[in-house]
Amino acid sequence: MGPLIDDLRAFLGARLLTSEAARAQHAENEAWYPPALPDAVARPATTEEVAQILRACRAHKVPVVAQGARTSLEGHHLATRGGIAIDMTGMDRVLAIHAEDLDVVVQPGVTREALNRDLRATGLFFPIDPGANATLGGMAATRASGTAAVRYGTMREAVLALEVVQADGQIIRTGTRARKSSTGYDLTHLFVGSEGTLGIITELTLRLHGQPEAQSAAICRFDTVENAVDTVTTTIQMGLPMARIELVDDAMVRGFNLSSDAGLVESPHLFIEFHGTEAGVAETAATFGEIAAEHGGHDFTWSTLPEERARLWSMRHGAHYAMRALRPGARSISTDVCVPISALAEAVSTARHEGDKLGLVQVIVGHVGDGNFHCGILVDPEDRAEIDRAHAFAKTLSDLALRLGGTISGEHGIGLGKRSKMRAEHGPAIETMRAIKRALDPEDILNPGKLLPDD
Amino acid sequence: MGPLIDDLRAFLGARLLTSEAARAQHAENEAWYPPALPDAVARPATTEEVAQILRACRAHKVPVVAQGARTSLEGHHLATRGGIAIDMTGMDRVLAIHAEDLDVVVQPGVTREALNRDLRATGLFFPIDPGANATLGGMAATRASGTAAVRYGTMREAVLALEVVQADGQIIRTGTRARKSSTGYDLTHLFVGSEGTLGIITELTLRLHGQPEAQSAAICRFDTVENAVDTVTTTIQMGLPMARIELVDDAMVRGFNLSSDAGLVESPHLFIEFHGTEAGVAETAATFGEIAAEHGGHDFTWSTLPEERARLWSMRHGAHYAMRALRPGARSISTDVCVPISALAEAVSTARHEGDKLGLVQVIVGHVGDGNFHCGILVDPEDRAEIDRAHAFAKTLSDLALRLGGTISGEHGIGLGKRSKMRAEHGPAIETMRAIKRALDPEDILNPGKLLPDD
Repeated sequence: MGPLIDDLRAFLGARLLTSEAARAQHAENEAWYPPALPDAVARPATTEEVAQILRACRAHKVPVVAQGARTSLEGHHLATRGGIAIDMTGMDRVLAIHAEDLDVVVQPGVTREALNRDLRATGLFFPIDPGANATLGGMAATRASGTAAVRYGTMREAVLALEVVQADGQIIRTGTRARKSSTGYDLTHLFVGSEGTLGIITELTLRLHGQPEAQSAAICRFDTVENAVDTVTTTIQMGLPMARIELVDDAMVRGFNLSSDAGLVESPHLFIEFHGTEAGVAETAATFGEIAAEHGGHDFTWSTLPEERARLWSMRHGAHYAMRALRPGARSISTDVCVPISALAEAVSTARHEGDKLGLVQVIVGHVGDGNFHCGILVDPEDRAEIDRAHAFAKTLSDLALRLGGTISGEHGIGLGKRSKMRAEHGPAIETMRAIKRALDPEDILNPGKLLPDD
Repeated sequence: MGPLIDDLRAFLGARLLTSEAARAQHAENEAWYPPALPDAVARPATTEEVAQILRACRAHKVPVVAQGARTSLEGHHLATRGGIAIDMTGMDRVLAIHAEDLDVVVQPGVTREALNRDLRATGLFFPIDPGANATLGGMAATRASGTAAVRYGTMREAVLALEVVQADGQIIRTGTRARKSSTGYDLTHLFVGSEGTLGIITELTLRLHGQPEAQSAAICRFDTVENAVDTVTTTIQMGLPMARIELVDDAMVRGFNLSSDAGLVESPHLFIEFHGTEAGVAETAATFGEIAAEHGGHDFTWSTLPEERARLWSMRHGAHYAMRALRPGARSISTDVCVPISALAEAVSTARHEGDKLGLVQVIVGHVGDGNFHCGILVDPEDRAEIDRAHAFAKTLSDLALRLGGTISGEHGIGLGKRSKMRAEHGPAIETMRAIKRALDPEDILNPGKLLPDD
């Protein structure tokens, strides 16, 4: 490692960090994975520096992993085999706002909130919202989505073009600023979601949207989760243009009440948002209100007050922390299945039933308009048997999602945690993925041990 | 070739065609590429038969190219190196309609019109509409789009999942029926647009849309192409929800008048469609009418009569043939650049100016809501100098599109015709594509000589 450190220090100077504190800071994660110390942390300022780092790491056959805001829930950014962590947060400039084309060019260390602050005056916004204030590079690398995907899609739809540094230090550009193209292999989509295992994203061109003329937030209470889910299914099948439609079950509402005095009735709720013209929002909200009422919804109210919207989504985004109020000292394990909308009711019911059977403390929250929901299971970190039950539960849910035509991860990705389940979803296509990985990173230096299962 | 033919006949029987007539039929194309005779035509009925064909071709190192409706304008399906043409049109079953999930599972030989006939009773439709009644397998392989892409996206957005037979005969599945996923490399998007060079698509799961409550067609006349384009740019930048917005220039209108007595004033027109609720369509049409009027639009009229819509789009879809009326006996060469919307006016103006300067007979038609337009250049097939001028013109346009941040092909693909321009668009990313091709088809048997430039 010493010779590599010397090579890197030669051009990074003080932006190569080897202190215990810096390494420890870059070893942490939001989930329950053990910390993983990189041997050093590099803080590049330019694409060319990223390329130099990769050339050096390749020459020394040392692993390298890019890090953004480190908000991954699957340990994507952990340097589990040591090596160099490249902290991309210093590359945080918005390079060009093309308001007339509804796109923006950014460096990977820009966070989604910072981007939206910069866009405020333009009347445009970037809608992909995974909750955490993640970096856009990290969001692209993990194909993030979140609450607004039902209307605006995920990072899959949001990324128009990329600049990527490959394992050998070659800098390439994928895609263009044109809305569509049919010229060759879709490398943009190959890198989006590749979790840093095929290349390191150093620039992104992202699709923007016009701020809607009217936005309204709404909340609706149900007696049962099943009624709430049926409301969602009907809404989506009717093609009602929802901007967000989120399920929180009674346990999650209790978490909100405990952690932030939300003052909600402790039963399942839908949190909703509508975007459109004044007339369109009113029409959609009215139709939604009728659907909800038919499925036993109570107290459906909507509001166009920005502060009420902000309060609602701030509460929803705090779910990951609020759930911990239900069992202080516990750690959370989060599932992330996504199923066709017709199978959502069965999937959610099974999740509740199986969780109860195993005696697990859990909340259910979900981007249910996409068929995506999370079970947050609160486990005693000292209770091995309980942790095993939680993992067995997660496995049951993954198997169920596959049986229903869905996927084991709607948005959190594979990282470390779901590698062993990849074959169940992809079968022999795993070998296709492996062939691509070998072709683009023959030395396996790019985030090794992530995404693909062991041989 | 003889031993391979024997191997294939053993399991295909009469569905292996070696007659001159069958080979000649599969040697033709809609563009000006010379016919290319395959050595034999295979008509598989099942995925397993496609796999058997590929295993046999690989063992004998013989090229293989899949064919659908053969409506490609870039010679994608031509067996330029001989070998086996796999005619997929026999695999033409709609396997499952999941109306409640807005998706459908089809074999690759189903055409888009046949699919929409099957869907009629469901209230759903498949919106991707390249004009030709292409097969869905071919449309996915070439990342087709067409007139409705401004609203519904292209095959990139339409394909949820694929079954693919790889070069070694391995059958894989990519994607799921869930709306989103973050599990591993996005192989679905890698195969969409890969033009048969990475695998052969044997099944597709496609996203459907609800038939809009109201549809209206409209037509608007302008004095200049620039005014028409400025109308489009303003419309798109305002985020008006257009279902189609197509430019036809004065020459194209003359072609429609000559070929089908269209009776239109011979000046540039926009052909438009709105989808939505009754109220929404009326509101959008009114707003569009105002924008058009501000840019000198004349006689803007809209109608919800189905027969008027059908007549309008049938005329537009006939453009490829109608333009020939302008110069009987000529062949057409079609360009296909796509640029950011802010650059559309400059691109279209330059196209007209450069075409005139070179003395070319051309029409301009375009899916201008996406920034995509075609120059149809009518050349005397005996006049080498004129053909050279047309190609020089196409090169000028491609260079311009790249300079403006666009792409050399919005929807027709690369095939044979644009391979030499690939490096100008993709630079060193060509080597990334080549590495993927080598990894997935090491013997180069899958549609060799297409998409990628020569080494």
